[in-house]
Order: sequence, then C-alpha cells, then structure tokens
Amino acid sequence: MVWSGRCGRVDNPLDHVGPAGHEVGVAVIGAGYWGPNLIRNFLGCDATWLWTVCDRDADRARRVVGRYTSIRVTDDFEEVLHDPRIEAVAIATPTSTHHELALRALAAGKHVLIEKPLAPSVREAEEIVQAADQANRVVMCDHTFCYTPAVEHIRKELDAGALGTIQYVDSVRINLGIVQPDTNVFWDLLPHDLSIFDSVFPGGFKPSAVSAVGVDPIGAGHACVGYVTMVMPDDAIVHVHVSWLSPVKMRTVVFGGSRRHIIWDDTDPAQRISVYERGIDIARLRDSDDQRARMVQYRTGDMYAPALAETEALQRVVREFARSIRTGEAPLTDGRSGLRVVSVLEAVEQSIRNHGVLTPLHDHASIS
Amino acid sequence: MVWSGRCGRVDNPLDHVGPAGHEVGVAVIGAGYWGPNLIRNFLGCDATWLWTVCDRDADRARRVVGRYTSIRVTDDFEEVLHDPRIEAVAIATPTSTHHELALRALAAGKHVLIEKPLAPSVREAEEIVQAADQANRVVMCDHTFCYTPAVEHIRKELDAGALGTIQYVDSVRINLGIVQPDTNVFWDLLPHDLSIFDSVFPGGFKPSAVSAVGVDPIGAGHACVGYVTMVMPDDAIVHVHVSWLSPVKMRTVVFGGSRRHIIWDDTDPAQRISVYERGIDIARLRDSDDQRARMVQYRTGDMYAPALAETEALQRVVREFARSIRTGEAPLTDGRSGLRVVSVLEAVEQSIRNHGVLTPLHDHASIS
Amino acid sequence: MVWSGRCGRVDNPLDHVGPAGHEVGVAVIGAGYWGPNLIRNFLGCDATWLWTVCDRDADRARRVVGRYTSIRVTDDFEEVLHDPRIEAVAIATPTSTHHELALRALAAGKHVLIEKPLAPSVREAEEIVQAADQANRVVMCDHTFCYTPAVEHIRKELDAGALGTIQYVDSVRINLGIVQPDTNVFWDLLPHDLSIFDSVFPGGFKPSAVSAVGVDPIGAGHACVGYVTMVMPDDAIVHVHVSWLSPVKMRTVVFGGSRRHIIWDDTDPAQRISVYERGIDIARLRDSDDQRARMVQYRTGDMYAPALAETEALQRVVREFARSIRTGEAPLTDGRSGLRVVSVLEAVEQSIRNHGVLTPLHDHASIS
Amino acid sequence: MVWSGRCGRVDNPLDHVGPAGHEVGVAVIGAGYWGPNLIRNFLGCDATWLWTVCDRDADRARRVVGRYTSIRVTDDFEEVLHDPRIEAVAIATPTSTHHELALRALAAGKHVLIEKPLAPSVREAEEIVQAADQANRVVMCDHTFCYTPAVEHIRKELDAGALGTIQYVDSVRINLGIVQPDTNVFWDLLPHDLSIFDSVFPGGFKPSAVSAVGVDPIGAGHACVGYVTMVMPDDAIVHVHVSWLSPVKMRTVVFGGSRRHIIWDDTDPAQRISVYERGIDIARLRDSDDQRARMVQYRTGDMYAPALAETEALQRVVREFARSIRTGEAPLTDGRSGLRVVSVLEAVEQSIRNHGVLTPLHDHASIS
Repeated sequence: MVWSGRCGRVDNPLDHVGPAGHEVGVAVIGAGYWGPNLIRNFLGCDATWLWTVCDRDADRARRVVGRYTSIRVTDDFEEVLHDPRIEAVAIATPTSTHHELALRALAAGKHVLIEKPLAPSVREAEEIVQAADQANRVVMCDHTFCYTPAVEHIRKELDAGALGTIQYVDSVRINLGIVQPDTNVFWDLLPHDLSIFDSVFPGGFKPSAVSAVGVDPIGAGHACVGYVTMVMPDDAIVHVHVSWLSPVKMRTVVFGGSRRHIIWDDTDPAQRISVYERGIDIARLRDSDDQRARMVQYRTGDMYAPALAETEALQRVVREFARSIRTGEAPLTDGRSGLRVVSVLEAVEQSIRNHGVLTPLHDHASIS
Repeated sequence: MVWSGRCGRVDNPLDHVGPAGHEVGVAVIGAGYWGPNLIRNFLGCDATWLWTVCDRDADRARRVVGRYTSIRVTDDFEEVLHDPRIEAVAIATPTSTHHELALRALAAGKHVLIEKPLAPSVREAEEIVQAADQANRVVMCDHTFCYTPAVEHIRKELDAGALGTIQYVDSVRINLGIVQPDTNVFWDLLPHDLSIFDSVFPGGFKPSAVSAVGVDPIGAGHACVGYVTMVMPDDAIVHVHVSWLSPVKMRTVVFGGSRRHIIWDDTDPAQRISVYERGIDIARLRDSDDQRARMVQYRTGDMYAPALAETEALQRVVREFARSIRTGEAPLTDGRSGLRVVSVLEAVEQSIRNHGVLTPLHDHASIS
Repeated sequence: MVWSGRCGRVDNPLDHVGPAGHEVGVAVIGAGYWGPNLIRNFLGCDATWLWTVCDRDADRARRVVGRYTSIRVTDDFEEVLHDPRIEAVAIATPTSTHHELALRALAAGKHVLIEKPLAPSVREAEEIVQAADQANRVVMCDHTFCYTPAVEHIRKELDAGALGTIQYVDSVRINLGIVQPDTNVFWDLLPHDLSIFDSVFPGGFKPSAVSAVGVDPIGAGHACVGYVTMVMPDDAIVHVHVSWLSPVKMRTVVFGGSRRHIIWDDTDPAQRISVYERGIDIARLRDSDDQRARMVQYRTGDMYAPALAETEALQRVVREFARSIRTGEAPLTDGRSGLRVVSVLEAVEQSIRNHGVLTPLHDHASIS
Repeated sequence: MVWSGRCGRVDNPLDHVGPAGHEVGVAVIGAGYWGPNLIRNFLGCDATWLWTVCDRDADRARRVVGRYTSIRVTDDFEEVLHDPRIEAVAIATPTSTHHELALRALAAGKHVLIEKPLAPSVREAEEIVQAADQANRVVMCDHTFCYTPAVEHIRKELDAGALGTIQYVDSVRINLGIVQPDTNVFWDLLPHDLSIFDSVFPGGFKPSAVSAVGVDPIGAGHACVGYVTMVMPDDAIVHVHVSWLSPVKMRTVVFGGSRRHIIWDDTDPAQRISVYERGIDIARLRDSDDQRARMVQYRTGDMYAPALAETEALQRVVREFARSIRTGEAPLTDGRSGLRVVSVLEAVEQSIRNHGVLTPLHDHASIS
C-alpha cells in the first residue's frame, strides 16, 4: 500500500510557483468587498496569472491574499501600470474612482475589467468606452449575474422568441443588507437588474423613460428602499423593487410574455428557473344580460424547470475577460452595456430628485 | 347497539324549517361570484335567518340555493324591500349598482351589508354613508380580509406599538385571475389592501398622495397589471403591486417598522404571520481613510410566528353584521372605512389618467 | 334596469324541492367526521338524490343538514332499508360497524359506498365483497384520494410506463391530528397510502411482506407515530411514515423509477406533481489507482409540472358511485381494492405485535 | 488621492510567508473529496500553520493547493511523520485506511483529526481511542455538523430540558448523490445523523437496539436507499431515512419532545431552526354514547425561529482541534463519540445482513 511505502518525493513549494506562459497576466485593484472574490477566481483560472493585488491599504490586501501566497501586494497603482507582465487590471474599487483608474490603465496599455456600475455618470462612462476604443483595448464590465446559468437560459429563451412579446418584467431584489455610507440602494442593487435586462433583451435594454421613488426610513441620508418603473418603447413595463431593509431575502424576476412566463427565483437552488405555458379560457358570464362582455381567464398551463449547472459565474467572467483579450472579440458585457446601465441609473437619479416624475432617456448614438 | 335497534324516530324535514325567533332576518342580493359565499355563511350562522335570495336572473339564484332548500328565490328587489321579516340586506351585485340598491334599502328601513368596494365614486360612497346616518341604520362593508385571524393579529401588534414607527408597507397581490370585463385590476384587487390597511393603521388609512401606473399587455381595454405608491403624512411609503397575469400566486404584505417587521404570507397556511426582531450592527469599514462613514448593518433577529386559528373570515363578517344591528354599535368595517377606501381608489384612477403623477388626497371632513 | 323593475316573480321554495327522476336515491349513514362531506357532495351532484341522513344521534344529523333543508333525518337504520326510494347507502360510521351495516344494506338490495377502511379484518372485508357479488350490487370504497387529479396523473404516467421500473416509493403523511380514542395511527392514515398505491400500481398493490413499528410517546394506548416498510415481489421497497404528532404537515409521496421520479407534494396547490428526468454521469475518480471503481452520479434532469385541475375529489367519488350503479360496471375503487388495503393493514398489525418482524402477505385467490 | 500617489511600497511576497510561531503545525493527509475543505480552513485559521499536504497522488495534491502557494506537497506519509514542525495531522483518506494512518501518527507523537466515520469497525475504532489514551495525544473526529450554529442551538435547548422528554426523532437525509463504489449509503450518510445525535443527546447517543433495511434499486452492489429505526432505552424511537437517489434534497431532523418540537431544516438558510410550542385540546365527541372516549388533539402552538450566525462549521472544527491540543482538554467530538457512532453503524450492518432484525447494541464499558 502506498501510504506505508517510502516511494514519496518531497516537493519544494517554490518549484511550482509561476505561470506556464500562455496566461494573461493580471492585477486586481481593490481588496475590499468584491476584490477577494475576483482574486479567488483569478487564482482558480488557468487562462490568467495573477501577479499583484493593489489596495490603498496594503495590510488589507495582505490579509486577503493570506500568509501562504506568492502573490505580490502593493499600495502603488503606478507600480502595477509599469509592470510589463501585467496585461490587464480588474478594478474593484469604489465607483467614484473607476473613471480615473480605468483611463490611466488604458493609457498604460492595459485591458480593463471594471466592477459594476461602470462609472457614476454617463459622461464618465462614455469617456471610458471611448478611451478603450482609441487604445484598442478591452473594457469589460463585471456584470456577474449575466454569466449565471439561469441568465444564460433566460437569454436563450428570449433569443428564440419562446415567450412571444415581452409584456412586463417584475423584479424584486430585497434583503437585509449593508446600508452603504456613500451610495443609495439604487446604485447598489439596481445595476444587477439593469445589466441582466441588458444581456437578455435582444439588442440590449433601452427603456424610453423611467420613474423612481425612494425611501429613507432609517435616516441613512439616502434611499434604502426603492421602486423603479421603466417604460419600454413598445409600452411594456419593467418594474424593480430594491431594498436593504427586508428581513426576508428575495431575488425574483418575472418575465411576462404573450405566450409564456419565466420566473427566476435565485434563492431556490433546486428550481431557479420555471417556464410557464399560458392557457386562455373564455368564459361567458352566466347572466341574462347580453350586453355583458365575455370574461377572459388566463390560467397556468404546464410548467417546465430546466436543469441548470451550478457553476460559479465569476469564474466565467474571468475566463470571458481572458478570451476577449486573446481573441480581440468584444466580451458579452462590454463597455457599451455598462454605459447603457449607467444611462438608466442617471435617469433614475433625476426622477428621484423630481419626486418620481417620468424621465425620458436620451440615446447615446455617438458611441453605440 | 343502536344501529340495529328499532328505537328510531322519523323526522318530517319541514318540522325543523324556520327561525327560532331571535335571528336577524336577511336577504342576499346577487347570486354571482360572491353571493354564494355570503349565502353559505348566513346559512351557517345562528344569529341570522336567510329568507330570500334575489338576483336579476332567478335561475342563477335557484342553482345557488340548490334543490333541497326552503329559501325563497326572487328576481324582484321590491318584494325584498316590502318583506317585513327581512331586516337587513347583503348586497353582492356589481359595484355600479351599489349606490341605488343601498339607498333604496335604507329608505325601506333595512340595514345594509355591501360588497367591496362600497361605491364607484367618492360622491356615491358619501351619499350611502349619509343616508345610513339619517336613517339610523347600519351600513357595513364586507371587507372580508379584516376579519381573518392574520389581520386581527397584525392590528393587535400595531395597536400595541410593537413595530415602532411604521416606515414602509409593501404588498404583492398577484395571481392568474379572471380578467374582468368592466373593471380594471385596481378596482378589483386594491380594495383588499386598502381595507386591510384601514383596519390595522391606528385611526384608519389616510395617505396624503398616491401615484399609480397600470399596464394592459393583453388588450383587455384596461389595466391588468398595476403598481401603486402611496405617501403617508409622515413620509412612510406604502406600495402595492396588483396583477391578474402572474402565473404564481402571491399574497404577501410586509409591514416594516423601526423596531420590528411583520410579514404576512397568506398563501402559507402553516405560517401566515412572521414577526421579525430587528438587529443593528455598526461596522467600521476596514479602511485607513478616517473620513469614510461607518456602515450600518441591519440584520434579522429572532422570528416569532403566532399560532392562528383557521376560522372562516366571512362567518365573522355576518356575525359582526348581526351584532352591530342588535347592539347599535358601529361595525369594525363601517361605511366610513368603505368611504376611505373609495377615496384612495378615486385618486389612483386620477393618477393613472395623468400618467402616474403624484395625486393628493382630499379630506372628507364633512362626514368623518 | 331590472333591479328596480316590478317584473319579479316570487318563488315558493317548496316548488323546486324534489328529484327530477333519473337520480340514484341515496341515504348517508353517519353524520360524524366524514359524513358531512359526503352529504355536501351528494347535495351538489345532479346524478343522485339524497333522501335521508341517518345517525344514532339524530340531533347531530339535524345539525349537519341544517335548518333550511328538505332532507329527512332519522336514527333508525331499518327505516332507511325499507324506503324503496333509497337505492344506495353511503356508510360513514366507525369501521367496526361497516360489516354489519353493509351486509344488512346489501341484504335489503341496496348498493353500498363504504368509508375507508372497508372493514377491521380481512375476514369481514371478504364477506362484504362476497355478499355484494351474491346480491349483484355495487360495493364501492370511498378511497377519496384516488379521485384527485394528482393521483389520476400519477396513474396515467405509471400506466404508460413513463417511470421505467418502479424501484422505491416513499410516503410521508404526518401532521398534528386528532389522537383517535379507538384506532391507532396506522388504521387512521395508512389506508390513504395503500388505496393510492392500489389505484396507481398496474394490477393493484400487492406487497409480499411488511414490517412495521409504532410509537406511543404520549400514552394514548396505541401507536401515534409509525413506520411501515413493504417489500414488493420484485424487491422494490415501499416505505410509509405516518404520524399524528408532527407540528409540520407533510403529504409527500415519491415514486422512484429507473427512468423518472414523480414527487407528489399535496400541500403545494401550485405544484402538486413534479416529474423529474434522471441523468446519469459516470465519473472516474481522479486517482492513480486503477483498481478503484468508477463512480456513478445520478443527477437531476429537467423537471416538468403538469397543470392539474382543482376539482373536489369527493364529488367525483359520488359520481363514480352513481355511474357504477346505473351502468353495472365496477367502480375504480371496488370492494376488492378495499379488501387488498385491509389485507396489508392486517399484516401491519401482526408485524407490530411481533416487534417489527417481516410478515408475509397471503393471497386472497378465492375472491380476487 | 492615494491611488495616484507614488508613496507605495512593493512587497516581496515571500516576506510574509511563514507562521508567527504560536500556531499548531499541521499536515493534511488526503486531497480527495474532503481534504480540500480542510486545507482551505487550515489556511484561514490563525491558530494553525499548514506545512504539508500529503496524498498518494502528489499531482492531485498539487492541483488542490494551487500554483501560488508555499505549502509543501508530498506522497510520502513517513516524511510527514518525521517532520518535527508538524504536531498534528488531519486524516481525510478512505475509511479503510484510518486505523493504520492514525496509529502510525499517534506512534510518531502527532495529534490526530480524523474524517468521519472514525473507522470501519468497532475493534479498529477502539484501538485508535486506546492508542491516543496511551500516547496522551488528542484524537478528534471531524463531525462537522456538530459545529454548526443549528446543532449548537439544538444542543442548548436539549441541555436546558426545553423540549421535555424526547419522544421521537425523525431524520431525512436524501438527495441525488454520488453512488460510492466501495461503501453503502449507510456508511456514507448515517454518520452525520449519529454524530449529531451524539452531540445533542445529553450523555451521548446510546440506542439499545437498531433495525435497518436497505435497497439497491440501481444495481450498485450495495444499498443506495435505506431506513434505520433505533430504539432508545426509554422506548423513544429514532428513525433515519438516507438516500443517494432522491431528486429532491432534504436535510430535515425533527426532535419531538413532550413539551416542544424542534424542526431543523438545513436546506432553508433563512429559517433552519423552528421551535414549536405544543398545545393540547381535549375534545368530547359530539356523541350521545357516553362510553366513547375523549379525543386528544395536539395542536401547533406559537413557533419561534432563533437567528443563527452563518459561520462555516469546519472553521470551528479546526479551531477546536487547535484548542484541544494547546489546552489538553478533550474536544467536543472526541474519539469516544466517534466510537459510539461506529458502534451503531456496525449494528446497522448486522441488522441489514439479517433482513432487518432488531439488533441489540453492546456497551463499550472498557473504554467509555
């Protein structure tokens, strides 16, 4: 039996430290809330090699990479930019810093993966997209949900027209979360919905107007509970409820079509996606009065729940990033999708300031 | 053993037909969707005696009372009004007829129980309330949900101030329902929420403004999916989502307070009411930057689910009606509560016509 | 408008009392727990006419039929037997009385519907079946669950061989119930499972041996919690867990086949039946040792949930009874199915007395 | 702004490789299914330092530790035993190897953490416990579930006597799992339940007899579905259902006591633990017959769901291991608890071989 044999060979741990050569060399910028997830997924990806983690607080970065690692830690972004082994950076810092960091990285010839939302304003998002175009570098948004098997399935159904015409979409994204000090619940949670919609609506998500109300019941200084209504060019309505204050966690998105409904319940790992056939019954009122109209009864038809793989979406994000860099093809969630998301967020902000007034969205024809 | 004995006595079925004498004599007007439920509950109530069922379509009424009954059927409302044994009528006809039928019944000295909503306009609702006042008769709204053990429990908690300040209320009332020919989803479903709110908010439900949007994705001629946002005088927000088109049935109302949350899930008979303690954690960002604000994390505390009786609410409605008639005390859901419900509905209607604009509600000081 | 018109016609309620003529005349015997449900369903069925309700306690029967009815009440079973208008009786009395009442009814030429279980012993059940054969009358068991849309669907899938070979069945039937004074939890709840199995297994449910253990944790004098394991001739195993003491209600039956699984969750009205495809993966252990066997991973495939009607099963029971009487065809749940159920119950009883020993079941070739 | 500054300091990644000095030096043996979880948790624990991962297949170990690590990999167990920096080993190899590896590690003066079950036979488990006693070293079982907040809560309630007398326990542990080549479903899944029971029953879990049946519907060569009934000295019954073939995952354990029930649903992260008060109603049958006994109705009372932390249990396992080594106090899940678990497993095996016969358990007085 092997366990008792002496045939063993001792490994020098440093022998196997280092990339094989074909990997995309990367650095992660920001080791706060999301950075550690990016780091873990770069570590587990054989298409990338993570050289450096950079954070203003080097101790925080050090805690994140741990005590057993060969990864370099720095608090100097310039050092990252000058490291020729680093081809690409993943930016997971506060939104307010995205614009500056991305432009500097692009100027240094790096490809850029940026945490959602892309930027705090349409203007800044546009400049990032344009800079990437000019530098001929990849700019990709980390719209993680778009890489889940659930969203992939929804996209496939919508692409195939399986739902008929989309009539309404209703999303509830609520839980007891961290009340952020410097951003409201819309900027925190709504990008998830907007990026999902952008990835599944054929041609991207382009509402014509939005209306939003927010509530700050706990005196946080900005909205902690919010409702957004978005009107589509064909009059379909998309509604999103976001909240940091719900004792019950809900992650449910309903896509209502003329032929089928999809319900995505992301809190139910055993049945995330349910596709409902729709039945129609026409019932006559039992009524002597002929003038009374017929009643239409829609009823639930059979339901189908596809088996979905349970893969980590963020692993697919980092692979898509590497693939895009190596092939030159635009990633699924490119800068333009990030820009569309920011466009809606800006209009939401405007509607809130105007007490919920319906606010039209402008086209960004120049760069789209 | 009795089964084999011959000690039996044959009953003449007609021997036991007839009231004992103390009962409130009633008639049910309308044998359509809701009437049969009222009839069944009057039959099972020992405080009332049901003499007559009246419907424009006598055959329909006859089918409802069945072939074994002693109950009289008529299509003549006048006959009901002239029957001295009938002290009270329960009106379960289309909303558009409530005003006329109620006024005629009150004029004939009858007490009146009226299906929700009380009337299709504030003006008509006011006239019903005033007529009842002048005739010194009971006018009660059949706000059935207010008599469920779940709503009773919520009312008790709110009365005791157990939630602290109410910060927001969120209701989802959606399912695949009958698309009504002559009324939109707001007038069909929203009265449930409004009457519930009116019965649990201490002092009644009196929002200062409402905003509403509706969607008609199936070409029904009026809204089948709708969202209503109501602003309270203290800036709390009440939001209701109603739909006839959801393949999944939801009946969830969340009351978010400064100290506790109540979640009422009416589709879960095993745990309709959950009361959540709220915990607060103050977390410092691990950040070298002192200017960054502290983060507040609300977290779920312990939860408590009271055991609730499973009694039929409508049985308690008819008993409350009888009690109010015999004692002269106003019923829990009196005409004024019905009027408050109609006031909000009228404002909702107005907001929809004006593309969701925030619409203020007027006081009805004259009669409240 | 009709409501205000005077065109009405007053109905004499007695005018419409009485059968049309084609109905099967019936009496319900026993107005305790289940009788009222039978009564309600006979009243709502146009293929039967209910003449009489008979109970040892005439006052109880009178309370059940109510104060508005034309139905006769008696405590004299003989009177029922001599009434020529009564062609059939539905027996909803304690199990110990089934044998005597059924034999007397059959002797008087009546058809018989009997509450489950058919009788307290195989011998008595056999005599009922034989008596019905000799009298050429219908004897039907009220195995209500067999008439639900869910069981109908399962039967159809099994008949079509959609599951492949049935490998195991697992049923959990637990809740907080009434601790019966004179019967244990097996005789109270297990008949549901056995009758369901008998109706969906092609050819009826015929285990070759059973083993059972019961627990009486509250000193009721007999088992309140029990487990039954049944071995099928092809070595498949059927397991049932019954309990009166569970704070959570569960009504779940799993049919595990070689190709598909069916899960029936009767507490979920929105999705009672789920049919799972089964996937198989063969995984090699990542192991240098060639001798290690391959691992088989079964995984969940797609799932399909058929839309089911929400009809009352008991209404279909009374219609099936009437149909069988009028056509002479055996009902779905005939006396022989009731006898098979009692055979298993008797073996369960024997196993419990012998501390759970595996107890073989005998064939009832004489009458099957 | 810091990001643009040049104040950064470059870290040599090797600078921070190495323990602080107080840590318990450990090696993980086995890098198959469970080893990676142990490795991850030792890496995240500041009370231990992981020096080496040892596996017969060094490549597998290398894949597990990854390409960025300072951890040594070897396929030579002797090298581990001779490394003086390694004070303790965590054994996550197949059960058949536990006895040999543990005895050799103890003989080399190492403390030992062993994956469940402790050994494949009572004799081997006893020898491990005795060897640890003689060597004065810690032997701890990795009964991970015992360190979850849910089990901690149950233990606290049982210790406080909050449930009254335990009357029955019912566990369902089923899902679609990997069909193991060399072990049946009992040895794979039942140790979870047995170790949990051992940790929450005051004094440890000591049934007096067990009965078990297993089914192999897919021709795996051993049981894939099984039922175990265990009789306690006070006649309480503990029942466990294990399966690798269920399309639905269930992880539910019910503790039924004379005063309260606890339901632990481990698949519901929002409400894992529910504690039900029990109510009792005594109902008189509405019956003229005085001899009929009174009926007892147990009903659900209020329910309480404690807020539980969501901490990783395995992190607490490795901390408990380090604590026990440093303090000399026995760990919560010591070798004797592992031995008790194996004792029941051996009796289960015996009962299965004897077609489910009730098999008594012997005391292990010599070492307990």
